[in-house]
Amino acid sequence: MFEPWYIAPIAALISIVVGLYFYRYVEKQDSGTDRMREISDAIKTGARAFLRREYTVLFMFVGVISALLLIFLPTPIWAGNPLDNVSLMLAYIFGSSFSALAGFLGLTIATKANAKVANCAQQGLNRAFPVGFRGGAVMGFSVVGIGLLGISIVYFLTGDPEIVLGFSFGASALALFAKAGGGIYTKTADISADLVGKVELDLPEDDPRNPAVIADNVGDNVGDVAGMGADLFDSYVASIVAVMILGAALSLSGNAQFIQIPLVFAGIGIFASIIGSLTVRVRKNGNPGSALNMGTYITCAIFGVLTAVGTYYFGYDWRVWGAAFVGLIAGVIIGVTTDYFTSEDKAPVIKTAEASKSGPAINIITGFSYGLRSIILPLIGIGVAAVVAYMLVSPIAKELLLPADYIVKYGVFGISMAAVGMLSIVGLTVSNDAYGPIVDNAKGVAEQSGLSEEVIAITDELDAAGNTAKAITKGFAIGAAGLTVISLLAAFQEIAAKAGHNAVFDIMDPLVLMGALIGVAIPAVFSAMLMLGVGRNAERMIAEIRRQFSEIPGLREGKPGVKPDYAKCVDIATVGAIRELMPASVVIIVATLLVGFIGGINALGGFLAGAILSSLLLALLMSNAGGLWDNAKKLIETGKFGGKGSEAHKAAVVGDTVGDPFKDTAGPSLNTMITVMSLVASLFAALIVQYNLLGILGL
Amino acid sequence: MFEPWYIAPIAALISIVVGLYFYRYVEKQDSGTDRMREISDAIKTGARAFLRREYTVLFMFVGVISALLLIFLPTPIWAGNPLDNVSLMLAYIFGSSFSALAGFLGLTIATKANAKVANCAQQGLNRAFPVGFRGGAVMGFSVVGIGLLGISIVYFLTGDPEIVLGFSFGASALALFAKAGGGIYTKTADISADLVGKVELDLPEDDPRNPAVIADNVGDNVGDVAGMGADLFDSYVASIVAVMILGAALSLSGNAQFIQIPLVFAGIGIFASIIGSLTVRVRKNGNPGSALNMGTYITCAIFGVLTAVGTYYFGYDWRVWGAAFVGLIAGVIIGVTTDYFTSEDKAPVIKTAEASKSGPAINIITGFSYGLRSIILPLIGIGVAAVVAYMLVSPIAKELLLPADYIVKYGVFGISMAAVGMLSIVGLTVSNDAYGPIVDNAKGVAEQSGLSEEVIAITDELDAAGNTAKAITKGFAIGAAGLTVISLLAAFQEIAAKAGHNAVFDIMDPLVLMGALIGVAIPAVFSAMLMLGVGRNAERMIAEIRRQFSEIPGLREGKPGVKPDYAKCVDIATVGAIRELMPASVVIIVATLLVGFIGGINALGGFLAGAILSSLLLALLMSNAGGLWDNAKKLIETGKFGGKGSEAHKAAVVGDTVGDPFKDTAGPSLNTMITVMSLVASLFAALIVQYNLLGILGL
Repeated sequence: MFEPWYIAPIAALISIVVGLYFYRYVEKQDSGTDRMREISDAIKTGARAFLRREYTVLFMFVGVISALLLIFLPTPIWAGNPLDNVSLMLAYIFGSSFSALAGFLGLTIATKANAKVANCAQQGLNRAFPVGFRGGAVMGFSVVGIGLLGISIVYFLTGDPEIVLGFSFGASALALFAKAGGGIYTKTADISADLVGKVELDLPEDDPRNPAVIADNVGDNVGDVAGMGADLFDSYVASIVAVMILGAALSLSGNAQFIQIPLVFAGIGIFASIIGSLTVRVRKNGNPGSALNMGTYITCAIFGVLTAVGTYYFGYDWRVWGAAFVGLIAGVIIGVTTDYFTSEDKAPVIKTAEASKSGPAINIITGFSYGLRSIILPLIGIGVAAVVAYMLVSPIAKELLLPADYIVKYGVFGISMAAVGMLSIVGLTVSNDAYGPIVDNAKGVAEQSGLSEEVIAITDELDAAGNTAKAITKGFAIGAAGLTVISLLAAFQEIAAKAGHNAVFDIMDPLVLMGALIGVAIPAVFSAMLMLGVGRNAERMIAEIRRQFSEIPGLREGKPGVKPDYAKCVDIATVGAIRELMPASVVIIVATLLVGFIGGINALGGFLAGAILSSLLLALLMSNAGGLWDNAKKLIETGKFGGKGSEAHKAAVVGDTVGDPFKDTAGPSLNTMITVMSLVASLFAALIVQYNLLGILGL
Repeated sequence: MFEPWYIAPIAALISIVVGLYFYRYVEKQDSGTDRMREISDAIKTGARAFLRREYTVLFMFVGVISALLLIFLPTPIWAGNPLDNVSLMLAYIFGSSFSALAGFLGLTIATKANAKVANCAQQGLNRAFPVGFRGGAVMGFSVVGIGLLGISIVYFLTGDPEIVLGFSFGASALALFAKAGGGIYTKTADISADLVGKVELDLPEDDPRNPAVIADNVGDNVGDVAGMGADLFDSYVASIVAVMILGAALSLSGNAQFIQIPLVFAGIGIFASIIGSLTVRVRKNGNPGSALNMGTYITCAIFGVLTAVGTYYFGYDWRVWGAAFVGLIAGVIIGVTTDYFTSEDKAPVIKTAEASKSGPAINIITGFSYGLRSIILPLIGIGVAAVVAYMLVSPIAKELLLPADYIVKYGVFGISMAAVGMLSIVGLTVSNDAYGPIVDNAKGVAEQSGLSEEVIAITDELDAAGNTAKAITKGFAIGAAGLTVISLLAAFQEIAAKAGHNAVFDIMDPLVLMGALIGVAIPAVFSAMLMLGVGRNAERMIAEIRRQFSEIPGLREGKPGVKPDYAKCVDIATVGAIRELMPASVVIIVATLLVGFIGGINALGGFLAGAILSSLLLALLMSNAGGLWDNAKKLIETGKFGGKGSEAHKAAVVGDTVGDPFKDTAGPSLNTMITVMSLVASLFAALIVQYNLLGILGL
């Protein structure tokens, strides 16, 4: 019999087909001259080399975790049903593999698309734009298609949302590697290439003489395409799983539909995204930035209408639809307000650029301060969306005359539906996001292969459009991450309750308080470890770049035929990124387990809450300050406040360099970090209820 | 009849006498040559000018708040007993005035002591040291003496801890002005003097030709002496009041002593500090830094013994003593661990100094990352101290067979006793802290009046000792602030409960959650406003310094008889600091009231909890990163990594300048900010229970 939630796997399969169609479309385009192919191939080879190494390490990591899952979870294998352990482990492996597959597909086409976009740009903007957008859309539709298909399969086979949690954990573990590892990689290459190339030797950006230039281009792909894709795969899956677990608790109260609503809405979100993506077009002299944003708005509207139809047709409660729609609206609002702090024509960027005239220190203080100020509006947005969604849905429990604790459960279900609403159009937002590094790389290819100024100008325009679109999609990502981790916290509480511990995360409970205090510090420590990792890795790479310039005769002068050893730099960035990533990953998992097994469920709940609050704070601060410094520098480069080469420009370059690991390494990795911590807590919740030190001591 | 708590006013009076004795001692010392007197007078005049203006604005502010208190609090004047309103208003005015008096005394002697220390340094270190220390001790003993006397008077007259809350609010409002205003002042002057003097014109530090040099010296006094004194006056009073309010709730359960224990312990703390301060001595070639720290350790030991005697004699529960002692120990541990991140001979400073070789951006990223890493140990310290204190004291409720909610009340009382324990020796820690700027100024006087290299070396050594002592005392201040605001949150909850709303600050309650999300952002916004204020103010001052150098003939060349217009710079810093401070103060008070009157008690509780967590995070990050950058620069100046004048040094100067407003403006103001917010919430709690938008709408 057809059940409504079958919409999810159907939409997922269609999404994969659309992704493959775009893949073929991009692949059919011409890659241009030999030189262009050569550069594109070097980037592709470098990116693949990174992925291969990363996946090798990941393979071992997955092996270790799988063994642990098999032995201990959901219950120790000697205590419960061993079949559950096998299922969970397989779901975990499955989650990792599916996420890896989505990343691989997206990255492959992205590294091919760059030269094709550059080549098409010779025939005009409206010819090049769809190649870039569809290249990004491969990632977008792979992520949602493969993600939702995976969830559907696991749910179909087991019918147990807690086993789906294993799938989600697999995706998260991969995302942590992909996002944080890619983040370290990309900034290692970027900072090193800039510091030696631009600052010491005065070479232009993307100069082929710079040994780090290919690594830098690879970095855009592994950090911004593969990393971002894995990150959103992770958020997308986690948000659906969290709401399924919360929905399962409501289904017990007689509303079997609640466990399936998120799947139905996610499926509809895919249809909306596909239709939206087909409307993204640019005319001959059109503006690609507004085309991308218009696609987002259209998709939101279609999603609103289609889910309303679904709600009517399947007889769902309208208030649940309202909660999802509130999430969507909040995402747009957060995006627009975030945009204010990083736009070149708004006060924060202008004032920071102006402050650069007083030197780098004042530039840093000003940008950092605006970064701090940018935090409040998104947090109000998340907070208000949560309250509205809660207040919409919680009265259902009263109408059903359920006991008082169901009021909270329904309310929290509403919050998590808001998260699903925000993430439902992720197919499109990932497409927009992945478009950015593709056209950025296209510009690099155009410059390195000596295409005309006119063509470079077109790639420039395409690149600028990517930044515009990014502001809105970043709003979605931040808001969705905030709401998702709140629902994961609720899911954790639910799982602990099922295991026999009804926890209230009362901040005046000393264990919750202690957990919160420690939790607040973890995102800070994690960010610090990643950024110090970038610093150490960059030092190694800077030494290598300097070595090549001094040891390879004719390189600096650009003697024809003399080429730097690009592969060596790619290798240093790769090895270093993975080396620096491991300790940070281990620290957050071990800290979560330590707090849980020492302090118990309440301490762990406080810990997660503290970590959620501080990771939102730090992620917004770092992402926005980083974007602001970047654009302040760009503003000066347009000739304002002294222009390129002035003292103000030098000061702004310092700010931009500080902002690089903020916005591309530490800031965006915090989403993944908090998801991983929440999932680890949920997976171990039942064990922690039984075995925790303070509980055993009777305190 | 003699009641045990009379120890508090007696100790307070003795403390004031000791303060006056030290005042006379310092005043009797010779101020040296005419030139030295002249500089000292200029600093004194500048500092007084700042205080006069600040107090004028404050006077108006106090007037407005008094009127509001009279009309609305504790209940609207038409609804309750008007006498309560008058009492609360008078207590508030009283609190402001007493804090202002302590600040005035401390600042007056500090600005006199500088030249006297410099003069005595000509006779050797062991002659100059006691002048500096006792100069600082005037502030130390004024703060605790006047603070505890004020609390005792208000409590004696009204017997109502909630009226004492008014006294505490008066002290907090003043502290906000003194600390944040002083912080903006001092960094405006410091950054401006450095950027024009050192960077543009290559003048040495404290060069008398620099028009901002007096403003810079004044800044040390108004920021570090008066501001810090008001800040600790505020924390000290707030911690005692919070525990009195919590104790009052326990007294209802038959333990009348609990309301008075904090007063007794605070009184004993003063005796311990006085004895401790008399042991602080330095021999001919002794080490002043270890003398200061030894004084702290001795005071801790004496406090432990004396409170044990008091506990035995008055028949208090030993577990309450244990909670206070746990607080004290935690303070020492936090201090020692904090020291690690800012010490010149430890990895963080050394690595940051080394990173400066790769330029300012890498210096900033490295220092910032270590700042992020420094957060975790103090937070674990606060968290563990809270849990231990709670677990020590809460079983008392069980033994007394009280209802379950008393278990929490007793436990939270234990947490607040830990805060009192940490702050009990604040007389000594303020002395050590105020010693710092006095000897720093002494060095300035010595340099400006051309004393010999040998004398300058002695003042240098005295100055370095101040930095060593500061690390430990800062640990106390941070730990105590953390525990105090937790007890203030508990006091707020208690007051709301008395007004008829039993709130549980459950993080899964959507209003608590929304409050927490918004609360997290407030310290960020507040810090940003202060730092942007420093930036704007510095721009005005830089323009003035440049004007003087270009318009006053012979100034730059140092022609004899040509003097800059110091007063103008003092004036710019003063006016600007107050102008920049007002909006930030208004924002935090209005935000607190808005959240309360819209969302109600639960939202406000979440708001305070979020603000507490994020202000601890930001305060630790900013203070420690700032101290670290400062010392990384100093380390390079000793000749490491290229030494003074190298590229690494220039990079480290950028880090130091970024760190200045971090560690001296924004970071330390956050303590006061959160206290003010907590007190506003507590004062308005009863009104908010009655009138809040969501409550009125029935949501």
